[in-house]
Amino acid sequence: MQGDQQAYDRGTSIFSPDGRLYQVEYAREAVERGSASVGVTTADGVVLAARRRVRSSLMDPESVEKLHQVADHLGVASAGNAADARQLVEFARRTAQRDRLSYDEPMGVEPLAKAVADHVQEYTQSGGARPFGTALLVGGVTEDASGDPRPTLYETDPSGTPSAWDAAAVGRDSAEIREFLEAEYRSDGDLDAGVDLALEALAAPDDRSFSPADVAVATVTGDAGYRGLSADERRTALDSLDLLDENGNPQAS
Amino acid sequence: MQGDQQAYDRGTSIFSPDGRLYQVEYAREAVERGSASVGVTTADGVVLAARRRVRSSLMDPESVEKLHQVADHLGVASAGNAADARQLVEFARRTAQRDRLSYDEPMGVEPLAKAVADHVQEYTQSGGARPFGTALLVGGVTEDASGDPRPTLYETDPSGTPSAWDAAAVGRDSAEIREFLEAEYRSDGDLDAGVDLALEALAAPDDRSFSPADVAVATVTGDAGYRGLSADERRTALDSLDLLDENGNPQAS
Amino acid sequence: MQGDQQAYDRGTSIFSPDGRLYQVEYAREAVERGSASVGVTTADGVVLAARRRVRSSLMDPESVEKLHQVADHLGVASAGNAADARQLVEFARRTAQRDRLSYDEPMGVEPLAKAVADHVQEYTQSGGARPFGTALLVGGVTEDASGDPRPTLYETDPSGTPSAWDAAAVGRDSAEIREFLEAEYRSDGDLDAGVDLALEALAAPDDRSFSPADVAVATVTGDAGYRGLSADERRTALDSLDLLDENGNPQAS
Amino acid sequence: MQGDQQAYDRGTSIFSPDGRLYQVEYAREAVERGSASVGVTTADGVVLAARRRVRSSLMDPESVEKLHQVADHLGVASAGNAADARQLVEFARRTAQRDRLSYDEPMGVEPLAKAVADHVQEYTQSGGARPFGTALLVGGVTEDASGDPRPTLYETDPSGTPSAWDAAAVGRDSAEIREFLEAEYRSDGDLDAGVDLALEALAAPDDRSFSPADVAVATVTGDAGYRGLSADERRTALDSLDLLDENGNPQAS
Amino acid sequence: MQGDQQAYDRGTSIFSPDGRLYQVEYAREAVERGSASVGVTTADGVVLAARRRVRSSLMDPESVEKLHQVADHLGVASAGNAADARQLVEFARRTAQRDRLSYDEPMGVEPLAKAVADHVQEYTQSGGARPFGTALLVGGVTEDASGDPRPTLYETDPSGTPSAWDAAAVGRDSAEIREFLEAEYRSDGDLDAGVDLALEALAAPDDRSFSPADVAVATVTGDAGYRGLSADERRTALDSLDLLDENGNPQAS
Amino acid sequence: MQGDQQAYDRGTSIFSPDGRLYQVEYAREAVERGSASVGVTTADGVVLAARRRVRSSLMDPESVEKLHQVADHLGVASAGNAADARQLVEFARRTAQRDRLSYDEPMGVEPLAKAVADHVQEYTQSGGARPFGTALLVGGVTEDASGDPRPTLYETDPSGTPSAWDAAAVGRDSAEIREFLEAEYRSDGDLDAGVDLALEALAAPDDRSFSPADVAVATVTGDAGYRGLSADERRTALDSLDLLDENGNPQAS
Amino acid sequence: MQGDQQAYDRGTSIFSPDGRLYQVEYAREAVERGSASVGVTTADGVVLAARRRVRSSLMDPESVEKLHQVADHLGVASAGNAADARQLVEFARRTAQRDRLSYDEPMGVEPLAKAVADHVQEYTQSGGARPFGTALLVGGVTEDASGDPRPTLYETDPSGTPSAWDAAAVGRDSAEIREFLEAEYRSDGDLDAGVDLALEALAAPDDRSFSPADVAVATVTGDAGYRGLSADERRTALDSLDLLDENGNPQAS
Repeated sequence: MQGDQQAYDRGTSIFSPDGRLYQVEYAREAVERGSASVGVTTADGVVLAARRRVRSSLMDPESVEKLHQVADHLGVASAGNAADARQLVEFARRTAQRDRLSYDEPMGVEPLAKAVADHVQEYTQSGGARPFGTALLVGGVTEDASGDPRPTLYETDPSGTPSAWDAAAVGRDSAEIREFLEAEYRSDGDLDAGVDLALEALAAPDDRSFSPADVAVATVTGDAGYRGLSADERRTALDSLDLLDENGNPQAS
Repeated sequence: MQGDQQAYDRGTSIFSPDGRLYQVEYAREAVERGSASVGVTTADGVVLAARRRVRSSLMDPESVEKLHQVADHLGVASAGNAADARQLVEFARRTAQRDRLSYDEPMGVEPLAKAVADHVQEYTQSGGARPFGTALLVGGVTEDASGDPRPTLYETDPSGTPSAWDAAAVGRDSAEIREFLEAEYRSDGDLDAGVDLALEALAAPDDRSFSPADVAVATVTGDAGYRGLSADERRTALDSLDLLDENGNPQAS
Repeated sequence: MQGDQQAYDRGTSIFSPDGRLYQVEYAREAVERGSASVGVTTADGVVLAARRRVRSSLMDPESVEKLHQVADHLGVASAGNAADARQLVEFARRTAQRDRLSYDEPMGVEPLAKAVADHVQEYTQSGGARPFGTALLVGGVTEDASGDPRPTLYETDPSGTPSAWDAAAVGRDSAEIREFLEAEYRSDGDLDAGVDLALEALAAPDDRSFSPADVAVATVTGDAGYRGLSADERRTALDSLDLLDENGNPQAS
Repeated sequence: MQGDQQAYDRGTSIFSPDGRLYQVEYAREAVERGSASVGVTTADGVVLAARRRVRSSLMDPESVEKLHQVADHLGVASAGNAADARQLVEFARRTAQRDRLSYDEPMGVEPLAKAVADHVQEYTQSGGARPFGTALLVGGVTEDASGDPRPTLYETDPSGTPSAWDAAAVGRDSAEIREFLEAEYRSDGDLDAGVDLALEALAAPDDRSFSPADVAVATVTGDAGYRGLSADERRTALDSLDLLDENGNPQAS
Repeated sequence: MQGDQQAYDRGTSIFSPDGRLYQVEYAREAVERGSASVGVTTADGVVLAARRRVRSSLMDPESVEKLHQVADHLGVASAGNAADARQLVEFARRTAQRDRLSYDEPMGVEPLAKAVADHVQEYTQSGGARPFGTALLVGGVTEDASGDPRPTLYETDPSGTPSAWDAAAVGRDSAEIREFLEAEYRSDGDLDAGVDLALEALAAPDDRSFSPADVAVATVTGDAGYRGLSADERRTALDSLDLLDENGNPQAS
Repeated sequence: MQGDQQAYDRGTSIFSPDGRLYQVEYAREAVERGSASVGVTTADGVVLAARRRVRSSLMDPESVEKLHQVADHLGVASAGNAADARQLVEFARRTAQRDRLSYDEPMGVEPLAKAVADHVQEYTQSGGARPFGTALLVGGVTEDASGDPRPTLYETDPSGTPSAWDAAAVGRDSAEIREFLEAEYRSDGDLDAGVDLALEALAAPDDRSFSPADVAVATVTGDAGYRGLSADERRTALDSLDLLDENGNPQAS
Repeated sequence: MQGDQQAYDRGTSIFSPDGRLYQVEYAREAVERGSASVGVTTADGVVLAARRRVRSSLMDPESVEKLHQVADHLGVASAGNAADARQLVEFARRTAQRDRLSYDEPMGVEPLAKAVADHVQEYTQSGGARPFGTALLVGGVTEDASGDPRPTLYETDPSGTPSAWDAAAVGRDSAEIREFLEAEYRSDGDLDAGVDLALEALAAPDDRSFSPADVAVATVTGDAGYRGLSADERRTALDSLDLLDENGNPQAS
C-alpha cells in the first residue's frame, strides 16, 4: 500500500488528495467479507435470499440473521458486519413505525431506504465513529400513485447512497452474482420463479449445493406481506433446482 | 506530493502556511470525480440536466438521483459524493419549507443557495467533520422586485461560496463543459433550446451519445414549476440532437 | 506483526483496508484469555457451567463469578474480562427488569440476548471507549408461541453479534470444547445428562479433574427457574463422572 | 520552512516559542490570496470598492459578493476566503439588528467592528476551529457625540484586532494599494472624489483597466444610507478615470 | 520493553493484540508500589491492618490514611495511590449512605464491594481518564440469610473485579504476605488472634519490627462496629508478638 | 532548542519534567512582542501610558487601543496580543459592572485585578484553549479602609498572577523601562510629574522622540475618574520634556 | 532522560509501566521551583510563614501572596505556581463558606484540607487538564471532641494526598527546612517561639538574612483567629533572631 494512502485512511472526516474517503471504501470491504444476499423483484412481490454461514452443527441456523422483517410489507436482507446490520435494521424498524404512526399508512420502500441511507451517511462525515460496515437490500410492496401494488427493491451502501434495482446482490462475490442476475432476470416472472432465480444466483459463484440451513429465503407480497420460507419449503425449492445437499457445508460459505 | 502539503492537509480546521485549506480543495476533487451536471437559464425558466452513472441493466436509472425537486419552483442538480448531496438537498428542502411557513411566499433561489452555502461553510471551519464533497446547482423561477418571473441559477461549491450563472456546470470535465456553454449560450433561448443546449453540453467532453437512462433532465418554469422529463421526452430530445444511442453505455460516464 | 496491521488496530472507530475491525478481534483474544464457560440445552431446561480460576485457598471460589442470575428464568455464563462481564450482566438485569415492567411478562432469552448484543455493538462503532472484552452465554426457558416452555441458549460476542445454539462454549480452548460438544450432544437428554455433558466438556481440553470449587454449575428450568448447584451437588456430579479431584488445582485453569 | 515552525503551526490554541500564533499568520495569507477591497472616508460618507474575480462570461458578476449591506447605514467590504466572509457578514447583520432592537437607534461603525473583531478573536484562542481567513472593512455614517454625521471606516483582521482608517485596503497587493492611498488621500474630498480614489487605488498595483463587471462600488452616506453603484455608474466613473476596458479580463484579477 | 507493547499501552480504551489492557496492568503496578494492607476474617469479625509510610517524625502518622470507616459496620483498607484511594472511599461512603436511606438497613459488604468494582471498571473502558491506581479491601459484618452476623472480606482490584477472601493482602510484597496467610490462617480464630495474624503477616516479607506509628489496625464486629485500635493497643499487640520497635523506621516501609 | 523542550511545549495542560509550563512562557514572549505600556501611581492618582504602533498615516492612532476605561475610576493599559487584550478588558468591564450591581459601590483595583488573573489562570490549566498572550496594568483610585482615596496599580501576567506596583511596565523592553522607573520614581510626585515620568520611561529604551499619535496617556483620579489626554495635551507634555517629534515614526515602535 | 519515560509523561490520564504518574511528579517539581513556606503548630495556635520573591523595589511585597486567610480561624500558606495556588485558595474559601452555612459552625482544618485534596486529585485522573502545580499548608484552630481548641496543620500535595504535621515545609529546599524543623521543633513552645522557629527555618537552607518585605508571617489562634504580622512586627522578630537585613535581597529568594 502506498504511504500516501495510509496518510488519509484512518479518519472518517478526511478526504484524500484525490477526493476519496478511504474509510468508506474499507467499509465496502467489510461488506464484501460477509456472505452474499440477493433480492429479486417479480410481478407478484419481492424475493429476498441469503447465504448463511453456520459455524457448527450445534448452532441454530435461524439465528444467523441475514433476512429481517421491518414492517408488515417490508423486509431487509443484509451483508457485511452482522452487528452493524442489526443496528441499521433496528433503525429501519423504528423509522417505519414512527412513519406509520405519523401518516397512518404503511411506509414505502423508497422513503425507508432513503432514511436508512441518510442515517448511514452521517457516520461517514462526522468524526467520533466509523462508517457502518454493512449493506442492505430493502424490499417491499407499496401502492404506487394509481393504487396498484408495486414490488420495489432498494440497496443502501456504506457511503449512504440508495439505489433501486430489479434484482441486486450484496456481499461476497456480489459482482459475479450480479452478472448472473443480469443474464437470467425476467421482469415477468412470478414469485416462485423469483425464489428459484435468487437461489441459483447465490449458488452461481462457486457452483455449489446447499442444505436448507445454508440459505434463508423470504418473500414480500401485497397479500401475505413478509413471509419467511420454512426449512421444508427451502428444501423443496433447492431440490427442484438440483441444488440440494442435505449435509450442507457448515464451516464454509 | 510535498511533505509540506501533507503536514497541513488532514484537518478541516487548519490553514497551510500559504493560506490554503487543503481539505476543501480535496473536497473539490470529490466533486470532479462525480458525473457532470449542468444548468441553463432561459427566457422561460431554468433547465437542469445531468449525466447518470448506471452500473447495471438491473438498476433503475431513475434512482440515480442527480436532480432533486426542493420546492414547487425550486430544483437542484448535484455532482460529487451522492450521499453528501442527499444531505444537502434535505437541508435545502427543510430550509425552503421553513422559509415558506415563516413568510407565506415561496423562497427565492438566491436566499436558498446562500443558506445552503453557509451550512456548507460551517463544515470547513469547525473540527469534527469533513467538508461536503458535493457541489449543487440551484435553479428556479422567483418573482423579481417588479413581480416578473425571473429564472435564476446558483452554484454552491465545497468551500461554501455561492455564485450566480446564466449557465453552469459541475462535476467531471466541468471546465470543458463550461467552455462549450460559454461559446454556445444564448440568453434569449426558449426552454426547448435550453434542454438542447444542456444535453449537448453534457455530451461535449467526450463527444458521445446517450440512452435516455444515461441522462436526467428537469425544467423549472413559472407556470409548471419543477418538472422532470420522461424517458420518452429525453429520447425525443436526444434523437433530434443526433445524440441518441439506445444501448447507452451503462458502465461508463 | 505487520506494520500495516499496527496502523489500523488502535481505534475502535476505524476499519483496516481489508474491512476488519482489529480492536474487536483483540477483544475476542481477551475472551480467549478467560477460563471457559459452556451452555447446554436439554429437554427440561438449560445448563450453564464454567471453570473457575481460584487463585488461593483463602479465596472464596463462589466470588469468582462466572454464572449470573439475570431474572427468575434467565441466567448468564461469561468468559473473558470479568469486570466487563459484570457491567454487561448488570445491563442485562436492568433490561430484563424494565422489559418485565413494561410488558408484565418475563423477558425471553432471544430478545434479551439481542438487546445485550446491540449494546455491545455500540462500543465497537463509536470512539471514546473500547469494545467489551467478554462473551456471554444467555440461557433460559421461555414460552414459545404455543405456550410450551422452550429452553433456549444464545451467545453474544465482542462484535455484538447474537447467535442461538443447542450447546455452546466461550473462553479458553472453546474450539476444542465445541468439538467435544458437537460429538456428544444429544437433543433428547434430560437436565442431569446436560450437567454431565457440560462438566465433561469443560474437562475435555486438558483431560483434567476438578474440585467442586473449580467449577460452577447452574440450571434454568421452567419450574425451578435459575438454580445454582451447591458444592455438594457438584462433588456428586464430578464423582459420578470420575472427574473429581478434591484438592483441585487452585492456581491453574 | 524550519522544522521548528512546523512544530507549532498546526493548532490555533498554541503559541510558538517566540510568542507567535502561526495559524493566525496563515489566515492573513488567506486574506492576501483574495482580490483586494478598499475603503475611503470622505466629507460626505464612506466609499467601499472591490476588485471582483469573475471566472466566466456566464457568471453573474454581481453574485461575486465583495460588498455587503449590513444595516441601513452600514456596509462591509471583504477580502480573503469568500465563504468565511459571508459568515462574518451574517454575524455582523445579526449583531446590528439585535443592537438596534435593544437601543432603538442605529448601531455605530466602531461598536460593530469591535463586536466582529471579538467574535474573530475567539476562533484564534479556543481549539476546535480554525481562524477566519478573511478581513473586513466596515464603513458607515453614524452620529458623533454632537449629533453630526461622521463617516467612519474600520478594519478587522484575522487576529481579531480592529483599527480605524481614513482609507484602507485589504487583500492582494494591499501594501501597494495602501501606499497609493497614503500618497493620494485628501480628507476634504467629496463622495465622487472618494469613488475615483478608490477605483484608482484598486488599479494601482498592476496599472490595469476594468470592465464594470470587474469592480464593485458602494457608498454609505447619512442621507441615502448604503447604495451600490450600478454597472452604468461604474462604467461612467471608470471611463472618466481612463480605466475602462469594456472587455475586462474575466479570468484574471 | 518491546515496541509492540508500547504501541498499545497508552490508552485505557484499547486492547493489545493478545487481548490485554496494559493501562490496567500498570495500575496494578501502582498498587504494588504502595505499602501493604491486609484483611483477616475471624469468627467474631474482620480485622483490617496496614503498614504506614511515615516520612518524618513531625508527621502525624494517623493522617497517613490506610484504613477508612465507610459505615457503622463497614471498613476499608487500601493500597496504592493514596489520593485515588480517598476518592474510592468517598464513593463507597456515599454509596453506603444512599443504600441505607433507600432500604433502611445497613448495606452489606458484598453489594458495596461490587458497586465500587463497577465504578472502577468504568474508568478502564471509557477514554478521558486513567484507571484507579488503588486496590481496596472491604470488610464488615452483615447478617446472612438466617439473620446471623457474617464477617466478610472483599477485594476490589484496578480492573474492577471483586473477589471474596478469608484473608487477603494488597500492596507491596502482597504475594509473600498471601503465602504467609495461606499457611497460618485458621478460620476458627477469635478477633485477637486475627489482629495477631494480621500484624505478623505485615511483618513477614522483611522480617522487621514496627513502632505503633508504623501500623494501623481496625476491627469490625457485629457489636462494636468499626473500631480503630489506639497506639497503646497496637503497642501491646506488637509487644506480645515480639514485633515492637519503639523507634520504628519512619523513612522505610 | 532542545528536543526535550519541544516534547512538552505544545499543550497548556502539561508540565515539563522540571515543572515548567512552556505555553505560559511563550505567552510571555507574545507580551514582549507588543509595544510597551507603563503605569505610575502618584499622590493624586494613577497615570497609564503606552507606545502605539501606528502602521500608516491613514490609520487613526486613537483606534490602536492600548488604554481602556473599564469603569468610572478604573483603567487598564495592555501589552501583547491586541485581540486577546480586548477580550480580557471586556471581561474586566463585565466583572466591574456586575460587582457594582451586586454591592452598590465601585469595584476596587485589587479585586478586579484578581478576578482577571483568575480568569487568565483557567486558560493555563484546562486543555482546549491557549493562554492569553497579553499582560494588563490595572490602575485606579479606590477608597481604603479609612475612606481615603488610594491610587493603586496592579499587573496581571499570562500565568494569571496578580501583583501590585508603585510603577510598572509591560511589553517590549519592559526590563529597561522598569530599571528607569526604579531609578526615577518618587512616591510624592503629583499627577503631572507622573505623566512626565511615564513618557520619559517609554522613551528610555531607545532614547527616541514621539509624535502625539505615537503615545496614549490617561489618568485616573478620585475626582475626575478615568480621563484620556488629548493629542494637544500629549504634545504639550512631550514638548516640555523635549521628547516631541511632530513627524513621529509611524512604522516603528 | 530515558525514551521510555518520555513515552508516558505527557498525559495526566496515563500510568507508566512501573505504575507512576509522571505529570504529578512534574507538578511536584513546580512546587519545588517556588519559594518556601512553612507551618508550625504551637500550644497556642498555628504559625504560617513564607519567603517572598520581590522582583523590584517598586513592587508591593504584600501583593506577593504566599499566605491567605480562608476563614476566621483558617489560613493557608502556599508554594509553587502562584496562579494555581490562588485557584485552590479560592476553592478552599468557597468550601469553608458553604460548610459554615450548612452546619452553622466553623469548618475544621482536617475536613477542609481533605476537600482541597480531593479536588486536586480529580485533576490527576481525568484528561483535559493538568494537575495543580502547587502545595498548600492549611493551618487553623478548631475545637476537638472535648471542646478544647486544637491547633492543626495539614499539607496537600499535587497528587491530592493530605497529611497532618506538627511542623511542615513546602517549596524550594523543603527537605533541608524539614530537617531543621525536625531537629528544633518543641511541641510545648508558645506562639512567639513558633514565629521564631518558622523564620529560622526559612533562613536555614542558605543561612541568610531577610528584610521585612522578604517574608510573610501569620498566626492563627483560637482567640484572635487569622492575623498577619505587620512589617514592624516582622522587623522586630527578625532583629531579635539576628536575621534582619534592612536592604533585603529583592531579586533573590
